[in-house]
Amino acid sequence: MAAQPRDVVEQYVKLVATGPTDDIVALYADNATVEDPIGSEVRTGHAAIRELYAALENVAERNTELHTVKVAGKHAAVSFTLVTEFGDQRMTLSPIDIMEFDDAGKIVAMKAYWGPDDLVMEQS
Amino acid sequence: MAAQPRDVVEQYVKLVATGPTDDIVALYADNATVEDPIGSEVRTGHAAIRELYAALENVAERNTELHTVKVAGKHAAVSFTLVTEFGDQRMTLSPIDIMEFDDAGKIVAMKAYWGPDDLVMEQS
Repeated sequence: MAAQPRDVVEQYVKLVATGPTDDIVALYADNATVEDPIGSEVRTGHAAIRELYAALENVAERNTELHTVKVAGKHAAVSFTLVTEFGDQRMTLSPIDIMEFDDAGKIVAMKAYWGPDDLVMEQS
Repeated sequence: MAAQPRDVVEQYVKLVATGPTDDIVALYADNATVEDPIGSEVRTGHAAIRELYAALENVAERNTELHTVKVAGKHAAVSFTLVTEFGDQRMTLSPIDIMEFDDAGKIVAMKAYWGPDDLVMEQS
């Protein structure tokens, strides 16, 4: 049975905190596109998408909190917060991601909505 | 000076509660598209978009609450709640809308993310 968009979104937000990177990438279809943030260069395919999430492997601590998920058929929007700590730097990013799914429940397109106001860097 | 996306979004959520309909429609560019909810038929242009918001004129009470706005350049995502009362029926709709803006700060495209779980009908 195909994975349901809501379950995939919940798993996505969980995996962004825990990894492993391969499991995050596996939520995406082979030729999926990622635009994070929206307006930046589009990443296409697993290798390019992997680079984005592999950066998370370098932080000592990471946590996510899911705020809300909206699902409309094969489309979803999710609001969540990612907190990472590296040395004495804490970064808090609160995006809204929109996703489109294929029939198998894989993500075929993701666009992340966030700007400077949604990214806070501070000494932890 | 062109209207800023964040200001337009805030005005949009306010006007959805207060009207008038013409002021909501005026936030859109002439050939704007609206897909509400995403996956439904696309409305193109002021006349078609007007129909969507004119339906709000029939409810006795309407209120909106803005939860969060994300702005990335000419793109924005907004999470808000609309409550309408008509007779003894209260409807609560909590979408995430994504919007794209033109250089003048007009909305050129809006897509609303919500499904059955985000629409509550109850006796008030």
